[in-house]
Amino acid sequence: MVPVVSIVGSSGSGKTTLLEKVIAQLKKRGWRVAVLKHDAHGFDIDHEGKDSWRHKKAGAATVALSSPDKFAVIKDVGSEWPPERIIASYLTDADIVITEGYKKGPFPKIEVVRAAHSKRPVAAKDPLLLAYASDVALKTTVPIFGIDDYKGVARFIEKEVLKKARPATISLVVDGSPVPLKPFIEALLREAVVGMTRSLKGCEDAKEVEIKVRRR
Amino acid sequence: MVPVVSIVGSSGSGKTTLLEKVIAQLKKRGWRVAVLKHDAHGFDIDHEGKDSWRHKKAGAATVALSSPDKFAVIKDVGSEWPPERIIASYLTDADIVITEGYKKGPFPKIEVVRAAHSKRPVAAKDPLLLAYASDVALKTTVPIFGIDDYKGVARFIEKEVLKKARPATISLVVDGSPVPLKPFIEALLREAVVGMTRSLKGCEDAKEVEIKVRRR
Repeated sequence: MVPVVSIVGSSGSGKTTLLEKVIAQLKKRGWRVAVLKHDAHGFDIDHEGKDSWRHKKAGAATVALSSPDKFAVIKDVGSEWPPERIIASYLTDADIVITEGYKKGPFPKIEVVRAAHSKRPVAAKDPLLLAYASDVALKTTVPIFGIDDYKGVARFIEKEVLKKARPATISLVVDGSPVPLKPFIEALLREAVVGMTRSLKGCEDAKEVEIKVRRR
Repeated sequence: MVPVVSIVGSSGSGKTTLLEKVIAQLKKRGWRVAVLKHDAHGFDIDHEGKDSWRHKKAGAATVALSSPDKFAVIKDVGSEWPPERIIASYLTDADIVITEGYKKGPFPKIEVVRAAHSKRPVAAKDPLLLAYASDVALKTTVPIFGIDDYKGVARFIEKEVLKKARPATISLVVDGSPVPLKPFIEALLREAVVGMTRSLKGCEDAKEVEIKVRRR
Protein backbone atom coordinates (compact mmCIF):
# COMPACT_ATOMS: atom_id res chain seq x y z
CA MET A 1 0.00 0.00 0.00
CA VAL A 2 1.00 3.59 -0.57
CA PRO A 3 2.52 5.07 2.62
CA VAL A 4 0.12 7.10 4.75
CA VAL A 5 0.60 9.64 7.52
CA SER A 6 -2.16 11.40 9.45
CA ILE A 7 -2.16 14.97 10.67
CA VAL A 8 -4.32 14.97 13.77
CA GLY A 9 -5.16 17.43 16.52
CA SER A 10 -8.02 19.25 18.23
CA SER A 11 -10.35 21.36 16.18
CA GLY A 12 -8.74 24.76 15.60
CA SER A 13 -5.21 23.51 16.27
CA GLY A 14 -4.13 24.38 12.72
CA LYS A 15 -4.08 21.01 10.93
CA THR A 16 -5.22 22.41 7.59
CA THR A 17 -2.65 25.21 7.58
CA LEU A 18 0.23 22.94 8.50
CA LEU A 19 -0.88 20.35 5.96
CA GLU A 20 -1.13 22.98 3.24
CA LYS A 21 2.48 24.04 3.79
CA VAL A 22 3.76 20.48 4.13
CA ILE A 23 2.09 19.52 0.82
CA ALA A 24 3.85 22.40 -0.94
CA GLN A 25 7.20 21.36 0.56
CA LEU A 26 6.80 17.72 -0.42
CA LYS A 27 5.73 18.67 -3.91
CA LYS A 28 8.81 20.87 -4.22
CA ARG A 29 10.87 17.85 -3.26
CA GLY A 30 9.36 15.87 -6.10
CA TRP A 31 6.75 13.75 -4.32
CA ARG A 32 3.22 13.16 -5.56
CA VAL A 33 0.88 13.86 -2.66
CA ALA A 34 -2.74 12.84 -2.21
CA VAL A 35 -4.81 14.20 0.67
CA LEU A 36 -7.73 12.53 2.41
CA LYS A 37 -9.71 14.74 4.75
CA HIS A 38 -12.05 13.23 7.28
CA ASP A 39 -15.18 15.26 7.80
CA ALA A 40 -17.38 13.68 10.41
CA HIS A 41 -20.04 16.35 9.87
CA GLY A 42 -20.36 15.90 6.11
CA PHE A 43 -19.31 18.27 3.38
CA ASP A 44 -21.17 20.18 0.72
CA ILE A 45 -19.14 19.62 -2.38
CA ASP A 46 -22.07 19.39 -4.75
CA HIS A 47 -24.25 22.41 -4.32
CA GLU A 48 -27.99 22.68 -4.45
CA GLY A 49 -29.22 23.21 -7.98
CA LYS A 50 -25.98 22.11 -9.67
CA ASP A 51 -26.36 19.28 -12.16
CA SER A 52 -24.32 16.87 -10.04
CA TRP A 53 -26.53 17.67 -7.06
CA ARG A 54 -29.68 17.12 -9.15
CA HIS A 55 -28.47 13.75 -10.39
CA LYS A 56 -27.52 12.57 -6.94
CA LYS A 57 -30.87 13.73 -5.60
CA ALA A 58 -32.65 11.86 -8.41
CA GLY A 59 -31.03 8.67 -7.17
CA ALA A 60 -27.64 8.23 -8.82
CA ALA A 61 -25.37 6.35 -6.40
CA THR A 62 -22.27 7.89 -7.93
CA VAL A 63 -21.83 11.11 -9.83
CA ALA A 64 -18.66 11.97 -11.71
CA LEU A 65 -17.64 15.13 -13.52
CA SER A 66 -14.86 15.32 -16.04
CA SER A 67 -13.17 18.36 -17.53
CA PRO A 68 -9.92 18.86 -19.44
CA ASP A 69 -7.79 19.42 -16.33
CA LYS A 70 -9.49 17.42 -13.59
CA PHE A 71 -12.25 15.07 -12.69
CA ALA A 72 -14.29 14.43 -9.60
CA VAL A 73 -16.24 11.46 -8.29
CA ILE A 74 -18.85 11.77 -5.56
CA LYS A 75 -20.17 8.54 -4.14
CA ASP A 76 -22.96 7.79 -1.69
CA VAL A 77 -22.18 5.07 0.81
CA GLY A 78 -24.54 3.23 3.11
CA SER A 79 -22.03 3.43 5.93
CA GLU A 80 -18.76 5.30 6.16
CA TRP A 81 -15.89 3.75 4.26
CA PRO A 82 -12.79 3.24 6.39
CA PRO A 83 -9.88 5.35 5.14
CA GLU A 84 -7.89 2.23 4.17
CA ARG A 85 -10.60 1.32 1.69
CA ILE A 86 -10.77 4.76 0.08
CA ILE A 87 -6.99 4.82 -0.15
CA ALA A 88 -6.66 1.31 -1.61
CA SER A 89 -9.43 1.88 -4.16
CA TYR A 90 -8.98 5.53 -5.11
CA LEU A 91 -5.64 6.97 -3.99
CA THR A 92 -3.02 4.44 -5.01
CA ASP A 93 -1.35 6.59 -7.65
CA ALA A 94 0.39 8.94 -5.22
CA ASP A 95 3.76 8.55 -3.49
CA ILE A 96 2.14 9.36 -0.17
CA VAL A 97 -1.32 9.93 1.23
CA ILE A 98 -1.64 12.48 4.02
CA THR A 99 -4.87 12.38 5.94
CA GLU A 100 -6.33 15.27 7.87
CA GLY A 101 -8.10 13.75 10.82
CA TYR A 102 -8.64 10.05 11.55
CA LYS A 103 -7.11 10.42 14.98
CA LYS A 104 -8.19 6.87 15.77
CA GLY A 105 -7.05 5.55 12.40
CA PRO A 106 -4.43 2.87 11.80
CA PHE A 107 -1.79 5.23 10.42
CA PRO A 108 1.34 6.87 11.83
CA LYS A 109 0.41 10.30 13.13
CA ILE A 110 1.75 13.79 13.61
CA GLU A 111 -0.25 15.80 16.10
CA VAL A 112 -0.66 19.57 15.94
CA VAL A 113 -0.95 21.10 19.41
CA ARG A 114 -1.88 24.75 19.75
CA ALA A 115 -2.05 25.89 23.36
CA ALA A 116 -5.09 28.09 22.72
CA HIS A 117 -7.12 25.21 21.24
CA SER A 118 -5.75 21.97 22.63
CA LYS A 119 -6.48 21.23 26.25
CA ARG A 120 -4.44 18.07 25.95
CA PRO A 121 -2.96 16.19 23.01
CA VAL A 122 -5.40 13.75 21.40
CA ALA A 123 -2.81 11.16 20.35
CA ALA A 124 -0.44 11.26 23.34
CA LYS A 125 -0.98 7.59 24.13
CA ASP A 126 -1.16 6.37 20.55
CA PRO A 127 1.74 4.00 19.77
CA LEU A 128 1.53 5.27 16.17
CA LEU A 129 2.33 8.86 17.20
CA LEU A 130 5.48 9.89 15.33
CA ALA A 131 5.90 13.54 16.32
CA TYR A 132 4.25 16.76 17.46
CA ALA A 133 4.07 20.18 15.87
CA SER A 134 3.39 22.35 18.88
CA ASP A 135 3.57 25.87 20.26
CA VAL A 136 3.87 24.57 23.80
CA ALA A 137 6.30 22.30 25.68
CA LEU A 138 5.13 18.67 25.94
CA LYS A 139 6.31 15.75 27.98
CA THR A 140 6.99 13.12 25.35
CA THR A 141 9.63 10.88 23.85
CA VAL A 142 8.75 11.73 20.23
CA PRO A 143 10.25 14.69 18.35
CA ILE A 144 8.55 18.07 18.74
CA PHE A 145 8.59 20.55 15.87
CA GLY A 146 7.61 24.19 16.13
CA ILE A 147 4.00 24.66 15.11
CA ASP A 148 5.10 26.67 12.06
CA ASP A 149 8.08 24.46 11.22
CA TYR A 150 6.52 22.99 8.11
CA LYS A 151 9.92 22.47 6.53
CA GLY A 152 11.02 20.38 9.49
CA VAL A 153 7.78 18.38 9.40
CA ALA A 154 8.08 17.79 5.64
CA ARG A 155 11.68 16.61 5.97
CA PHE A 156 10.63 14.36 8.86
CA ILE A 157 7.80 12.82 6.79
CA GLU A 158 10.20 12.28 3.94
CA LYS A 159 12.73 10.55 6.16
CA GLU A 160 10.41 8.58 8.45
CA VAL A 161 7.49 7.74 6.16
CA LEU A 162 8.39 8.09 2.51
CA LYS A 163 11.89 6.68 2.57
CA LYS A 164 11.08 3.88 4.98
CA ALA A 165 8.12 2.65 2.95
CA ARG A 166 8.51 -0.44 0.85
CA PRO A 167 7.74 0.55 -2.73
CA ALA A 168 4.00 0.12 -3.18
CA THR A 169 3.84 -2.55 -5.83
CA ILE A 170 0.41 -4.04 -5.29
CA SER A 171 -2.85 -3.37 -3.53
CA LEU A 172 -5.57 -5.95 -3.12
CA VAL A 173 -9.13 -5.16 -2.06
CA VAL A 174 -11.47 -8.09 -1.46
CA ASP A 175 -15.19 -7.43 -0.96
CA GLY A 176 -14.39 -3.89 0.09
CA SER A 177 -11.59 -4.67 2.55
CA PRO A 178 -7.92 -4.06 1.78
CA VAL A 179 -5.94 -7.26 2.34
CA PRO A 180 -2.44 -6.90 3.77
CA LEU A 181 0.08 -9.11 2.01
CA LYS A 182 3.37 -10.58 3.12
CA PRO A 183 6.29 -9.69 0.85
CA PHE A 184 6.50 -13.15 -0.71
CA ILE A 185 2.79 -13.32 -1.50
CA GLU A 186 2.85 -9.74 -2.72
CA ALA A 187 5.63 -10.54 -5.18
CA LEU A 188 3.94 -13.75 -6.29
CA LEU A 189 0.60 -12.10 -6.92
CA ARG A 190 2.22 -9.10 -8.60
CA GLU A 191 4.26 -11.21 -10.99
CA ALA A 192 1.32 -13.50 -11.75
CA VAL A 193 -0.94 -10.55 -12.58
CA VAL A 194 1.68 -8.74 -14.64
CA GLY A 195 2.64 -11.98 -16.39
CA MET A 196 -0.95 -12.82 -17.33
CA THR A 197 -1.55 -9.29 -18.52
CA ARG A 198 1.60 -9.14 -20.62
CA SER A 199 0.49 -12.28 -22.42
CA LEU A 200 -2.42 -10.29 -23.87
CA LYS A 201 -2.04 -8.65 -27.25
CA GLY A 202 -1.06 -4.99 -26.94
CA CYS A 203 -0.19 -5.34 -23.24
CA GLU A 204 3.37 -6.64 -23.65
CA ASP A 205 4.90 -3.68 -21.80
CA ALA A 206 2.30 -3.37 -19.06
CA LYS A 207 3.62 -1.48 -16.00
CA GLU A 208 0.46 -0.46 -14.19
CA VAL A 209 -2.32 -3.00 -14.14
CA GLU A 210 -5.72 -2.64 -12.56
CA ILE A 211 -8.12 -5.56 -12.48
CA LYS A 212 -11.59 -5.49 -11.02
CA VAL A 213 -13.58 -8.68 -10.84
CA ARG A 214 -17.14 -9.19 -9.76
CA ARG A 215 -18.17 -12.80 -9.46
CA ARG A 216 -21.78 -13.66 -8.93
CA MET B 1 -17.24 -3.37 -18.64
CA VAL B 2 -20.35 -1.89 -17.08
CA PRO B 3 -22.89 -0.90 -19.76
CA VAL B 4 -22.85 2.76 -20.75
CA VAL B 5 -25.30 5.02 -22.57
CA SER B 6 -24.78 8.69 -23.40
CA ILE B 7 -27.40 11.42 -23.35
CA VAL B 8 -26.27 13.95 -25.94
CA GLY B 9 -27.71 17.03 -27.57
CA SER B 10 -27.15 20.72 -28.16
CA SER B 11 -26.64 23.01 -25.22
CA GLY B 12 -30.02 23.92 -23.76
CA SER B 13 -31.80 20.94 -25.29
CA GLY B 14 -32.69 19.56 -21.86
CA LYS B 15 -30.19 16.75 -21.31
CA THR B 16 -29.87 17.32 -17.58
CA THR B 17 -33.62 17.40 -16.98
CA LEU B 18 -34.27 14.25 -19.00
CA LEU B 19 -31.36 12.48 -17.34
CA GLU B 20 -32.60 13.45 -13.87
CA LYS B 21 -35.99 11.86 -14.55
CA VAL B 22 -34.51 8.79 -16.23
CA ILE B 23 -32.22 8.20 -13.23
CA ALA B 24 -35.20 8.29 -10.87
CA GLN B 25 -37.09 5.81 -13.08
CA LEU B 26 -34.18 3.40 -13.34
CA LYS B 27 -33.59 3.59 -9.60
CA LYS B 28 -37.26 2.82 -9.01
CA ARG B 29 -36.83 -0.24 -11.19
CA GLY B 30 -33.98 -1.44 -8.98
CA TRP B 31 -30.91 -0.44 -10.99
CA ARG B 32 -27.81 1.16 -9.53
CA VAL B 33 -27.00 4.17 -11.69
CA ALA B 34 -23.77 6.14 -11.96
CA VAL B 35 -23.59 9.38 -13.90
CA LEU B 36 -20.61 10.87 -15.68
CA LYS B 37 -21.02 14.44 -16.85
CA HIS B 38 -18.66 15.90 -19.39
CA ASP B 39 -17.87 19.52 -18.77
CA ALA B 40 -15.57 20.87 -21.43
CA HIS B 41 -15.40 24.23 -19.67
CA GLY B 42 -14.34 22.94 -16.27
CA PHE B 43 -16.35 22.82 -13.08
CA ASP B 44 -15.95 24.46 -9.70
CA ILE B 45 -16.60 21.68 -7.28
CA ASP B 46 -14.01 22.73 -4.73
CA HIS B 47 -14.58 26.32 -3.83
CA GLU B 48 -12.04 29.00 -3.11
CA GLY B 49 -11.04 29.03 0.52
CA LYS B 50 -12.37 25.52 1.28
CA ASP B 51 -9.82 23.10 2.71
CA SER B 52 -9.94 20.85 -0.34
CA TRP B 53 -9.30 23.87 -2.55
CA ARG B 54 -6.38 24.96 -0.35
CA HIS B 55 -4.79 21.52 -0.48
CA LYS B 56 -5.15 21.27 -4.23
CA LYS B 57 -3.71 24.76 -4.62
CA ALA B 58 -0.77 23.81 -2.39
CA GLY B 59 0.08 21.05 -4.85
CA ALA B 60 -1.82 17.90 -3.91
CA ALA B 61 -2.49 15.93 -7.10
CA THR B 62 -5.56 14.31 -5.58
CA VAL B 63 -7.83 15.47 -2.79
CA ALA B 64 -10.42 13.24 -1.19
CA LEU B 65 -13.08 14.00 1.41
CA SER B 66 -14.84 11.38 3.45
CA SER B 67 -17.93 11.69 5.60
CA PRO B 68 -20.34 9.17 7.10
CA ASP B 69 -22.68 9.12 4.10
CA LYS B 70 -20.48 9.88 1.11
CA PHE B 71 -17.02 10.55 -0.14
CA ALA B 72 -15.53 12.56 -2.95
CA VAL B 73 -12.30 12.39 -4.88
CA ILE B 74 -11.00 15.29 -6.97
CA LYS B 75 -8.06 14.57 -9.18
CA ASP B 76 -5.88 16.81 -11.35
CA VAL B 77 -4.92 15.34 -14.67
CA GLY B 78 -2.28 16.51 -17.11
CA SER B 79 -4.60 15.86 -20.02
CA GLU B 80 -8.26 14.93 -20.07
CA TRP B 81 -9.02 11.33 -19.21
CA PRO B 82 -11.18 9.59 -21.78
CA PRO B 83 -14.54 8.57 -20.33
CA GLU B 84 -13.71 4.85 -20.72
CA ARG B 85 -10.81 5.29 -18.34
CA ILE B 86 -12.81 7.11 -15.67
CA ILE B 87 -15.53 4.49 -15.96
CA ALA B 88 -13.17 1.50 -15.80
CA SER B 89 -11.24 2.89 -12.83
CA TYR B 90 -13.92 4.66 -10.82
CA LEU B 91 -17.45 3.69 -11.85
CA THR B 92 -17.44 -0.09 -12.08
CA ASP B 93 -19.75 -0.70 -9.15
CA ALA B 94 -22.94 0.45 -10.88
CA ASP B 95 -25.33 -1.52 -13.08
CA ILE B 96 -25.17 1.22 -15.69
CA VAL B 97 -23.26 4.41 -16.32
CA ILE B 98 -25.16 7.21 -18.04
CA THR B 99 -23.04 10.00 -19.41
CA GLU B 100 -24.23 13.51 -20.06
CA GLY B 101 -22.31 14.73 -23.06
CA TYR B 102 -19.50 12.94 -24.90
CA LYS B 103 -21.33 13.28 -28.19
CA LYS B 104 -18.22 11.97 -29.96
CA GLY B 105 -17.69 9.22 -27.40
CA PRO B 106 -17.66 5.48 -28.11
CA PHE B 107 -20.99 4.76 -26.40
CA PRO B 108 -24.54 4.16 -27.60
CA LYS B 109 -26.39 7.46 -27.55
CA ILE B 110 -29.80 8.97 -27.03
CA GLU B 111 -30.07 12.48 -28.39
CA VAL B 112 -32.33 15.15 -26.95
CA VAL B 113 -33.64 17.50 -29.63
CA ARG B 114 -35.54 20.62 -28.60
CA ALA B 115 -36.66 22.68 -31.57
CA ALA B 116 -35.92 25.97 -29.83
CA HIS B 117 -32.30 25.00 -29.10
CA SER B 118 -31.24 22.41 -31.67
CA LYS B 119 -30.69 23.66 -35.20
CA ARG B 120 -29.99 20.10 -36.25
CA PRO B 121 -29.35 16.87 -34.33
CA VAL B 122 -25.70 16.43 -33.29
CA ALA B 123 -25.64 12.63 -33.54
CA ALA B 124 -27.82 12.07 -36.63
CA LYS B 125 -25.02 10.33 -38.51
CA ASP B 126 -23.59 8.45 -35.54
CA PRO B 127 -23.95 4.68 -36.02
CA LEU B 128 -24.18 4.44 -32.22
CA LEU B 129 -27.33 6.57 -32.08
CA LEU B 130 -30.04 4.47 -30.43
CA ALA B 131 -32.97 6.88 -30.21
CA TYR B 132 -34.14 10.48 -29.96
CA ALA B 133 -36.14 12.29 -27.35
CA SER B 134 -37.54 15.17 -29.34
CA ASP B 135 -40.27 17.80 -29.48
CA VAL B 136 -40.10 17.91 -33.24
CA ALA B 137 -40.54 15.43 -36.10
CA LEU B 138 -37.24 13.95 -37.37
CA LYS B 139 -36.38 11.94 -40.41
CA THR B 140 -34.71 8.89 -38.91
CA THR B 141 -34.86 5.13 -38.63
CA VAL B 142 -34.32 5.06 -34.83
CA PRO B 143 -37.17 5.35 -32.31
CA ILE B 144 -38.29 8.85 -31.33
CA PHE B 145 -39.63 9.45 -27.83
CA GLY B 146 -41.44 12.58 -26.74
CA ILE B 147 -39.04 15.03 -25.13
CA ASP B 148 -40.78 14.55 -21.75
CA ASP B 149 -41.32 10.81 -22.13
CA TYR B 150 -38.75 9.89 -19.48
CA LYS B 151 -40.61 6.67 -18.67
CA GLY B 152 -40.37 5.55 -22.28
CA VAL B 153 -36.68 6.44 -22.40
CA ALA B 154 -35.98 4.61 -19.13
CA ARG B 155 -37.80 1.49 -20.33
CA PHE B 156 -35.91 1.71 -23.63
CA ILE B 157 -32.55 1.95 -21.81
CA GLU B 158 -33.51 -1.00 -19.66
CA LYS B 159 -34.45 -3.12 -22.67
CA GLU B 160 -31.75 -2.05 -25.13
CA VAL B 161 -28.78 -1.38 -22.87
CA LEU B 162 -29.17 -2.97 -19.45
CA LYS B 163 -30.71 -6.26 -20.47
CA LYS B 164 -28.55 -6.73 -23.53
CA ALA B 165 -25.30 -6.18 -21.64
CA ARG B 166 -23.24 -9.16 -20.73
CA PRO B 167 -22.87 -9.16 -16.94
CA ALA B 168 -19.82 -7.04 -16.15
CA THR B 169 -17.53 -9.56 -14.54
CA ILE B 170 -14.11 -8.03 -15.08
CA SER B 171 -12.47 -4.80 -16.06
CA LEU B 172 -8.81 -4.50 -16.94
CA VAL B 173 -6.92 -1.21 -17.18
CA VAL B 174 -3.32 -1.33 -18.38
CA ASP B 175 -1.15 1.77 -18.13
CA GLY B 176 -4.25 3.91 -18.05
CA SER B 177 -6.10 2.32 -20.97
CA PRO B 178 -9.06 -0.03 -20.57
CA VAL B 179 -8.38 -3.29 -22.40
CA PRO B 180 -11.35 -4.96 -24.11
CA LEU B 181 -11.43 -8.71 -23.52
CA LYS B 182 -12.97 -11.52 -25.50
CA PRO B 183 -15.37 -13.67 -23.48
CA PHE B 184 -12.96 -16.60 -23.18
CA ILE B 185 -10.05 -14.45 -22.01
CA GLU B 186 -12.35 -12.55 -19.68
CA ALA B 187 -13.48 -15.78 -18.03
CA LEU B 188 -9.93 -17.12 -17.84
CA LEU B 189 -8.56 -13.97 -16.24
CA ARG B 190 -11.53 -13.66 -13.90
CA GLU B 191 -11.26 -17.22 -12.65
CA ALA B 192 -7.46 -16.97 -12.30
CA VAL B 193 -7.73 -13.79 -10.24
CA VAL B 194 -10.55 -15.08 -8.07
CA GLY B 195 -8.80 -18.43 -7.66
CA MET B 196 -5.52 -16.86 -6.56
CA THR B 197 -7.33 -14.52 -4.21
CA ARG B 198 -9.40 -17.27 -2.63
CA SER B 199 -6.23 -19.16 -1.83
CA LEU B 200 -5.30 -16.35 0.58
CA LYS B 201 -6.21 -16.66 4.22
CA GLY B 202 -9.44 -14.84 5.01
CA CYS B 203 -10.35 -14.43 1.33
CA GLU B 204 -11.96 -17.84 0.80
CA ASP B 205 -15.34 -16.32 -0.14
CA ALA B 206 -14.05 -13.44 -2.27
CA LYS B 207 -16.69 -12.11 -4.65
CA GLU B 208 -15.38 -8.69 -5.59
CA VAL B 209 -11.64 -8.44 -6.11
CA GLU B 210 -9.67 -5.38 -7.02
CA ILE B 211 -5.95 -5.64 -7.73
CA LYS B 212 -3.70 -2.75 -8.61
CA VAL B 213 -0.12 -3.42 -9.53
CA ARG B 214 2.65 -0.96 -10.21
CA ARG B 215 5.82 -2.53 -11.52
CA ARG B 216 8.95 -0.45 -11.73
